Parts: sequence; structure tokens; C-alpha cells
Amino acid sequence: MDIQTLRNRHPDHWMRATAIRALTLDAVAAANSGHSGMPMGMADVATVLFANHLKFDASAPRWPDRDRFILSAGHGSMLLYSLMYLTGYEDMTLDQVKNFRQWGAITAGHPEYGHVQGVETTTGPLGQGISNAVGFAMAEESLRARWGSHVQDHHTYVIAGDGCLMEGVSQEAIGLAGRLKLSRLIVLWDDNGITIDGKVSLSDVTDQGARFAASGWDVFSCDGHDPEDIDRAITAAKASPGPAMVACKTHIAIGHAAQDTSKGHGALTDKAQLQATKDGYGWPGGAFDVPSDVKSWWEAVGAKGAEARSAWDARRTTLSATKQAEFARIFAGDAPAKLAATIRAVKKQAVEDLPKLATRAASEKVLAAVNPVMQETIGGSADLTGSNNTKTADMGVFSDENRKGRYVYYGIREHGMAAAMNGLALHGGVRAYGGTFMCFTDYARPAMRLSALMGVPVVYVMTHDSIGLGEDGPTHQPVEHLAISRATPNTYVIRPADLVETAEAWEVALTTKTTPTVLALSRQNLPAVRKSHTNQNMVAKGAYVLEEASTKRQVILMATGSEVEIALKAREMLEAEGIGTRVVSMPCWELFAEQDATYRRKVLPPGAVRIAIEAGTRFGWDTWLFGEGGKRDKGDFVGMTGFGASAPAERLYAEFGITAEAAVAKAKALL
Amino acid sequence: MDIQTLRNRHPDHWMRATAIRALTLDAVAAANSGHSGMPMGMADVATVLFANHLKFDASAPRWPDRDRFILSAGHGSMLLYSLMYLTGYEDMTLDQVKNFRQWGAITAGHPEYGHVQGVETTTGPLGQGISNAVGFAMAEESLRARWGSHVQDHHTYVIAGDGCLMEGVSQEAIGLAGRLKLSRLIVLWDDNGITIDGKVSLSDVTDQGARFAASGWDVFSCDGHDPEDIDRAITAAKASPGPAMVACKTHIAIGHAAQDTSKGHGALTDKAQLQATKDGYGWPGGAFDVPSDVKSWWEAVGAKGAEARSAWDARRTTLSATKQAEFARIFAGDAPAKLAATIRAVKKQAVEDLPKLATRAASEKVLAAVNPVMQETIGGSADLTGSNNTKTADMGVFSDENRKGRYVYYGIREHGMAAAMNGLALHGGVRAYGGTFMCFTDYARPAMRLSALMGVPVVYVMTHDSIGLGEDGPTHQPVEHLAISRATPNTYVIRPADLVETAEAWEVALTTKTTPTVLALSRQNLPAVRKSHTNQNMVAKGAYVLEEASTKRQVILMATGSEVEIALKAREMLEAEGIGTRVVSMPCWELFAEQDATYRRKVLPPGAVRIAIEAGTRFGWDTWLFGEGGKRDKGDFVGMTGFGASAPAERLYAEFGITAEAAVAKAKALL
Repeated sequence: MDIQTLRNRHPDHWMRATAIRALTLDAVAAANSGHSGMPMGMADVATVLFANHLKFDASAPRWPDRDRFILSAGHGSMLLYSLMYLTGYEDMTLDQVKNFRQWGAITAGHPEYGHVQGVETTTGPLGQGISNAVGFAMAEESLRARWGSHVQDHHTYVIAGDGCLMEGVSQEAIGLAGRLKLSRLIVLWDDNGITIDGKVSLSDVTDQGARFAASGWDVFSCDGHDPEDIDRAITAAKASPGPAMVACKTHIAIGHAAQDTSKGHGALTDKAQLQATKDGYGWPGGAFDVPSDVKSWWEAVGAKGAEARSAWDARRTTLSATKQAEFARIFAGDAPAKLAATIRAVKKQAVEDLPKLATRAASEKVLAAVNPVMQETIGGSADLTGSNNTKTADMGVFSDENRKGRYVYYGIREHGMAAAMNGLALHGGVRAYGGTFMCFTDYARPAMRLSALMGVPVVYVMTHDSIGLGEDGPTHQPVEHLAISRATPNTYVIRPADLVETAEAWEVALTTKTTPTVLALSRQNLPAVRKSHTNQNMVAKGAYVLEEASTKRQVILMATGSEVEIALKAREMLEAEGIGTRVVSMPCWELFAEQDATYRRKVLPPGAVRIAIEAGTRFGWDTWLFGEGGKRDKGDFVGMTGFGASAPAERLYAEFGITAEAAVAKAKALL
Repeated sequence: MDIQTLRNRHPDHWMRATAIRALTLDAVAAANSGHSGMPMGMADVATVLFANHLKFDASAPRWPDRDRFILSAGHGSMLLYSLMYLTGYEDMTLDQVKNFRQWGAITAGHPEYGHVQGVETTTGPLGQGISNAVGFAMAEESLRARWGSHVQDHHTYVIAGDGCLMEGVSQEAIGLAGRLKLSRLIVLWDDNGITIDGKVSLSDVTDQGARFAASGWDVFSCDGHDPEDIDRAITAAKASPGPAMVACKTHIAIGHAAQDTSKGHGALTDKAQLQATKDGYGWPGGAFDVPSDVKSWWEAVGAKGAEARSAWDARRTTLSATKQAEFARIFAGDAPAKLAATIRAVKKQAVEDLPKLATRAASEKVLAAVNPVMQETIGGSADLTGSNNTKTADMGVFSDENRKGRYVYYGIREHGMAAAMNGLALHGGVRAYGGTFMCFTDYARPAMRLSALMGVPVVYVMTHDSIGLGEDGPTHQPVEHLAISRATPNTYVIRPADLVETAEAWEVALTTKTTPTVLALSRQNLPAVRKSHTNQNMVAKGAYVLEEASTKRQVILMATGSEVEIALKAREMLEAEGIGTRVVSMPCWELFAEQDATYRRKVLPPGAVRIAIEAGTRFGWDTWLFGEGGKRDKGDFVGMTGFGASAPAERLYAEFGITAEAAVAKAKALL
């Protein structure tokens, strides 16, 4: 079908959708970079979706019962920005559109959560949006079941491209959504047959419809340039019993000389071609100029949800005052007032019992206390429930049969789990945590990075955090993963040493609102190292003096998690030789770095030999050995120098020389 | 079907397969850890495969034309070790089996490449083996096309479990194999319906056959305990025109009280249950005891390939002496003699031209020179060919229509690409490189870690290596990825500054035999910094003095890649003020760390202020600022402190303060 036919057949629709195309062409040309083809190709689908289906109110972008719209193909950001501008989102001014991809503008190259009110999640790394969407849809199902459809009753729509569908994480999302029968989830696939390297067929022959159907999805298709056909398909998708995929057959960069080519994917900036394209569209406006009747129509689209929102708000106020406050609290992401007392109680009991237990088991104890008083938690594991100790008795299993359940069997899908957790948190109203082995943070990395970039306070429960896991061997033994997590900006990496520190770690993780937390937890049992109670959360300080030198301080031993026990033993040995030795427990570098210089200097004063002990590699430790107030001091490291091995844990610690004896020897060598 | 029926129906087969089961039970019991259920469940399939189909010779484990057998479900390592022991692999003694999972034994918890002769690839992290297998099968197709079926003509068999198929990377592998029509690839799916958390249906309802078929695979199924049915299915799979998947319906932990349960997945160590299971099997032997007739039969299986191998060797010797040497060379992984001269020529030309170009473009120049003289390279990109500059004119595209092509359109599958590259390299006879954006090393992490753990010399061509990529914004801008790669043991992370360094980097990458290389390459143009020719490969030293102080050395500026230009400018400014300043180019930390202490001290002598400049985070740099001979020196860092932003590159460098002015100011502040 040629452009002229499309124009003639639905002239009003054509101009409305073409407003997106024209703004995209102008913004990309002004930036001299960006991606023109996708917004041009999907403009018709987006127009029908926003006008006829999407429940939203441009004047209230964060309304909790809005439909969620996720642009998984984030490079097509101008589609989103055009829609925000046209429908009248306050923050999306024409100036912002004109400053696409410029310093200080909210119109980043890829949609950034927190920059733009209407952006539900940061996308661009392919496959993330569609996988976040599973979490969004899970949150909606969960909240609807627990709060009622009068306050939660909406859909999650996704636009995804071939890139999203080729990324493996999309299979994890598809499998999970299919199992959970997330019928409110609707994926609109931009089936344009083009990738950056050329035709999709260069690298893929997958029948996407058959693939989705194999995992229990309902599959539809439409001509992605025919508004009636699009509307029919979306209507059917909404009515279908399973999650739905709509294959929208489109032409990338439609109407441009680069239509249907990989060149059309990128920045179309040639001025003559740009004008010719607009002429072909019959578009009357100059650069960034939208005819007033078209703009007015779009503004009406942006305003049409106001009624539904008012009705929702009226329903919300029928809740009791307590319920209303609770609803507001969980959507604000605030911890309940009871949390502090709950954590304190766990800590008090811990210093009475002084249990010898793995920190993963300690974590379960904390969760068993926290989950009942924090009903917004949704936990889970990537098929390691018994190993990650993530399931507590009260949770119930979230499934199509039990939407009130709060525990998710994510399957062997670390990446999909992490992305879904981001979606859960971004939706609001729930607090997500999920577990796997620390080593398999590798699988979840792309989503974990986005947690940090977006500032989403999800909790990664990463157990089996060192060679201490023993016989499973080097494929399962993290040695560089603490460094990897610590290298990532805006991430709290907490490696607690015992039950008290684990309780404090969870308190940090559940009270922060803008930072994800990685809890690194041991498989093996550990003795209690915090033996007296303090109300203060010492983990929140990042590092603190656990044991002071009994005589003149000559050595400072720094350790985290399972190696704090070794540091304490080494201290005893050094003290027995009259060498005054301080032990600093250092569960979280990032929190320590946030303390003021005075506190940091108090914990790590100059003038002593520093030995760091950790069953991972040294990478990053030199900052604390030499860079932090220790520039005149000697230091050394006890830990791993490479990959681990398969053997019982005790043997590995001995063979790799991660022992109190080694720490003592290294300290004495420097005295 | 109960055990008794199986025993009665095929009594000889039963005992042979049960040898695997009995050894597994004994080894796991001795180790008191491990995974019993999978080897027990898949013993019948493995027996039929090894006896009737797999072309191998236990006395020549590395014979280049053997069929490759990959245990993707690596936790079932006792299946592999049992097979190796039974068929008579020299290294797999009974003592090794008895020392399963113990220090010093080759029988690690998960199969480790390099430990055991018959282990083709390290598995355990799920989904990797099936994805490696795609690379194995690609290598075979490529070598068969280029060398002829008289020297390369074999199959790749994989055993994969539900875990492998749920991991997203498997979809990338399935999609790639389907597109490439890898008909010699046969996946045997252990369809036992059980995962660690319980039934597969807890987390997945995917119709796996339909899923594979959607990507162009031929799908078969069999009763995984009926040898005749298994044989029929494998025979059909071998004859099918596409890659084939055989769903083998099995019972996990068959015959044990834990059969068909998630408990059966793990370590079955109860002694009474163990004996009861063996009794049910009708197994006569004590612990680790295999009846001699059964062992003899298996040894004959291990020896039956000797004839085929002799015939192959006879065919190989019909090649010309030159060809034979070349064949041996590529399988040994040695670089061709011509490589050194080729690199030298590029370097010589570079110091004549002094081109201003991006290091990604420099990399293309190097490849254009290298690929013609190193015909064993197989390059590719995850759908960023034009951006990664990975395709050179002579390569041709590898596809089902052109098996001689050496360039792979991997699609938007970074993880699958990296895993396939591992497989290509492990197969032998080819040298694999592949590109994506540096930021998307995140997606490939699990496979990149295995490259390092196995010591596989693949080359990751990671372009767009900093905020210098500009407008695409923080989702695409690596800031922590240099640290992540550097934190990984046994990985050369090389960030060259210009064409000369890029050529030297490629020489390192193509001559190492046991270490993967990550090349971090700029999107933006960079000036030449190496202006005079030296035959010596300076990148191979890791770091070197690029410009010496013209007066008394007060400052040392260290930089990598695109920031070397900034260091040189800062040096000029400092020297203009009479401050003697050395510039150290530091393209590869790991290679520098490998140099002797004298050389390192020569490059980074004490007694000067040290400033490191890199458009990434500081994480790890303190080692070179303070930890390496600089403990008495002052130091500072010019770089990123968090995530980037979307704007033109020059603006970002200015806004984030990565400038010569900032370096000068920080140096002077410490003088």
C-alpha cells in the first residue's frame, strides 16, 4: 500500500499519526543523530493505542491506576517524546523536543526514567522493556487481587522490535508471562523485517507468533498502518485470556527514501529527503510545526483520561483512612513504621542466641520477621528457593490460581527475574526482592545495571557468595563479582558477617528509595560476631570498628562477611604476641564512602599496617589499603588471585591461603 | 514403565546404562555432594548415543574429526565422568571417579575444560553448553567447506536440561542455529519435568518442541529409557535437514525413592536408599564396582572409533605437506608466521600517515590486513557490523548458502555470540572474534567469564567504549565496564590509543593461546599518539613511557585509549609551566602486571605526583596510583564518578570534567 492510499483512506488519522513522524524527522535532524525509522513506522499503532485504548491522563502522569506504556525499543524515543508533547505532558515542552539529545534536556537519546514524567522505565538496552513489562503486569495483578479492582485495574502495553525479541531475556519474559497467564499484558511487535545489519532474515528465521504461542500467549496480527485493523487487533488482544502479542506489520521509515532498509533505522538527516518525505505525507507544517487542529485533537486524547482518573480517585477515597494512608505509603515506597522495631527485635534475639548460621539462613530469619509487617514485598528466586532462603511461610505462591501470593517461582531465568523486579518496583505499590547465586549476577547484569541507573530499590539476594560454596567449583564460585557489583554506580553491595549485620543490611535495603541493594550471603555457617546489642544500624555506616586493639594499635584488619571470622581469629593471634590489632567490619563500601571524612578517618586512622581479608579478588581493595587516609601506610591483601576450584570449602580456604595464619604473617611482614 | 519391565526388555542395555547410574550414586555418596538424578535419568540416552552414534576414540580424545559431545546440563558431570571412565579415557581413572569433587582431582563438581581430556567445554552455568554447541557446529561446517569432508565431517551432540532451555541465551542459540541451518547439531533434551524448585510447570508451560520448530529446527521425541526408541530418534535427527532437537522423556533419579521429584536433582546420599536403588536395578557390584563384562563392552565402545580415526589420518596425510602443516597450525592455535610482518607493516604505514581516526576504524584497518593472511579467523557482530567495524572485504558471509564465508551476522544476540565464539575456539581450527558495544559486555558476561575460566583466546571487539559515544546516553555509555572486565581473572583488557596501539593490541590478541582479549575501542576520532616506528610491541608491555618529562619529573600522567590525547595536552600545559611531566600510556593493566618489577618501577617510578585519566570510573585505579610503587606518592583521578548523559561527546567530556585543564589542576593541587 502506498502512502497516497493510506492518506486517502483515513485522512484524519493519517495527519495525527504523521505529527509523530514529522516531529521525529525534525528532532533527529536538529540533533543530527538518533533513530528516525521506528517512530515513523509505528506512528499509526501508537496513535490508535493512545487514542482508543491507553488509559492515561497527561495532567497526572503518575496516577497509580493508569495503563502502563513501555517503549521496549527505546531507540525510538522520539515516538514517546512526540506522544508526550502532543498529548500535553507538562514537562515535555516543544523546547525539550527541539533539544533532543542535548546536554540538560530531558529528551535523552534513549528514554530515561526520572527524566521524563511519562517514561515508565529506562529502555534502550534491548529486551529490557518487554521484560520489565512482565513485572509491571505482575504488580497490577497482585495489587488488584489484594486491594480490589476499584483501585487497581489496568493494562500494560509494550512496543517491542526485533532486537527485543532476539535478545535472550525476551524468552525468559515470554516464558514467565505465559506461565503466570498475565492477560493484561499486551506486546505490540514492530514487525518491520529490518535490523541494523540489514534484513532480519540475515540473522533470524523465527516465526515469532509460533514462538509466543508455544509459551501460552495469544497471538494476533494487523496491518500496522491501517488504524481500523490495528484497533481490531488491540481490542482482541485485550479480550484474550492469556498475555497477548500483536504482530504489527509495518514499514520502517515509511515514506522516506530509506523506507524498508537498515539505513532507515538510524538518523535520517538529509534535508532534501526530509522535505520530500514530508511532502509525500502531505504534511503542511515547517520544522516542529504541528497544525493546530492536529495538536488540539492530540490534547483531547491527553485529557480524555481525566474522567476515569477522577472516578478512580473517588473510589480510592471510599477506602478507610488507614487504607488510604497505606496505599499512599506503598506507592511512595516508604517502609512501614513497624520495620525498625522488627529489625531491632531480630537483632536483640540474635545477641541472645548468638547463632552459628549461614548469612543466607540469617536472611531467611529476617525475612520471616519482615514479610508479615511489610505486606508489599514480593519475593522470589530463579529456581533456587531452598538455596537462596527467599521464601517465608506467610507469602503464598503468586500464580494464575493465587494472585494474592507474594512468592514468585521465576524459573531458571536470572535475567528475566531481575528485569521483572525492576518492573515490579517501577510500577509502584510493591517492593521486590529475588535470589540466585552470587556468581549468576553475571546473567542478570544488564537488568541490575538498569536498577542502578534508574535508582530502583530492588534487593538482589545473592547467596553462595564465595569459594565457601565448595564443591560446585569455579563455575559457581564468584571471585570477581563483589568487584563487579561495587564498580557499578549507585548500588549498595552489602556482605554481612552474621545475623545482626544481615538484619541491618535488610533494613538498609528496605528503607532506601533510590538505590538497589546486592546482598552477598554465605552458603556456609558463620559464627556470630556482633555479640552485644546496639539500636544503631552499624551496617548503615558501611564500616565500623568491631574489635579494638587492646594495646597500641599497630595493625588494622579489614574484612567483610565470612572473612570477619578470620579477621577476629587473626586479631587474637596478633594480640597474643602483643601486637595491638583493630578489626574493622566493612560490610558496605558504598555506605562507608558516604560517611563524612571524620568518621572514615576514625574507623581507618593512619599509622597502622592494613590487611584486607576477603574471599574474592583484590580488585578495588587498594582504595581502602592505600587510597583512604592510608597513603603513608603499608598494606596487603588476603584473598583470591584467580578462579576457585572444586573441593570442600574448608580445604579451599586452606589451599588458597585465606586463613588467620596468612593474615598474621602478612601483617607481621609489614611491621 | 517400571524398572523391572525396562530390565527385562533390554537386559544387556540395562546393565550397561546402569553402570553410569551406579557410578554416579557411588561418587555422589563418596563426595557427599553433587547431582545424582540427571545422570541416572539420561544414562540410557547417553549409552545409545555413545555406543551407536558418537564418533570418538577414547585413546585419542583430541582427534580433530571426532564428534563433539557437550553436556550442557553440566551439574550432571558424573554422566560424563562415568562415560569417560567406562570407555577407557586414559586420564579418567577409577581413583579420579572416587575423588569426585575433591581437591586436586580432575573430576570437578562441574565439567572443567582442560581438566578432563574428554570435556569439550566447561559447563554448569546453564544454557552455555547448548550455545557453545552452535559455535562447534559452525566451526565444523566452516572447516568442512574450506578443507573438505575428508578431513572435517562430524556432528555436535548436546545434552540439555530444562534449566538450559529456560535461560534466555538458549533462545539466542536456537535462533542462530535455526537461521544457519546447522544440520549437524543435535540437541538431546532431558525432558524430566523437574527443576530445583519443583515441577517445571511451577515456572514454565512452554511447548519446547513448538518453540524449537518456530526457529527452523526439526523436532523429534523418544522414550528416554527405551534404547530402540532413542536410537530411532537420534538416527532421524541425524538425517534431518535442519538442526535437530530430540525430546527425551525421562525420569529423573530413576529407580530411586526420589525419582520424579526435585529432591532427585541433587545429592542422593542415603546409604540404605542407595542400596535399595541398586537392588532394584539388579546391579551386582559394590561401590565403584563394574562387572567385567559390562566394563569390557564399554571399553569396546571406547575403542570402536579407532578405525575411523586411522582412516581419517590416512586421508589427512593425502594433503600436501604445506596443507598438513597449516591444518596442524590452525588446530594448535598458533598464529601464522606472516602475522608479525603484517602488523609491522600496518604500524609503519601508520607512523607515516598519522591518521586521525577512531580506534574502531583503526581496528578495521588492522583486520583488513590480518584477515587475508589469517584465513582461520571467523568474525562477526551482534547486529552492529557498521558500528563495530568488524567486517572486512575478503571475508564473505557465513550462511547456509555460503559455508566458506567467514563473517557471521549474529543478530541482536551478544550473549549467544560470545558463547558461540567460545564454541568456535574450543572446536579448534578457527580463531573467533565478535563485536558489540562495550556497554553490552553486560549481556555477554556469563560467556565472557567462561572464556576467561577456560582460557579460550577469543577476541571481543567492544566499540563505543566510553561517554565518547555521545548522544545515545547512559544506557549505552560504559563507565564501569573497563573495571568489570579488568576484575575478571585471565582476561586481557586492551584500550588502545591510536592505530599503532590498535595493531599491537590485535597482535597480542591473535597470538595468545590461553587468554581472551577485550578490545575497548572508541567511537570518536582520535589523533595519532605513536609517531615513530618501533618493531617492539609496546602494548604487549601493558604500559610504557609515551612522552618523557623534559625537565625534572614532578608529575606522571597515566591514561588509556581516548584519554591519552588528553594526557599529552595536559603534559604540554604542565611543561609550559616548567613542571616536568611524563605521560604513560597504559593500554593493558594485566600485561603490565605480568612484567617484572624492575620494568614496572621504570615506567612508574616513585617520587612524582600521579594522575590517572580515563573516561570511566576510578574503580581499580588506586592500585596504580598508590599500590604500585607509589605508596609514598600523592595521586588523583580524572574520570567519571557515576553514569553518563545524553549529549554530544565534546560537551560530555567538558561537563564531566575529563579535560587536560582538570588534569593540570589536580596535578598542581598535589605538588
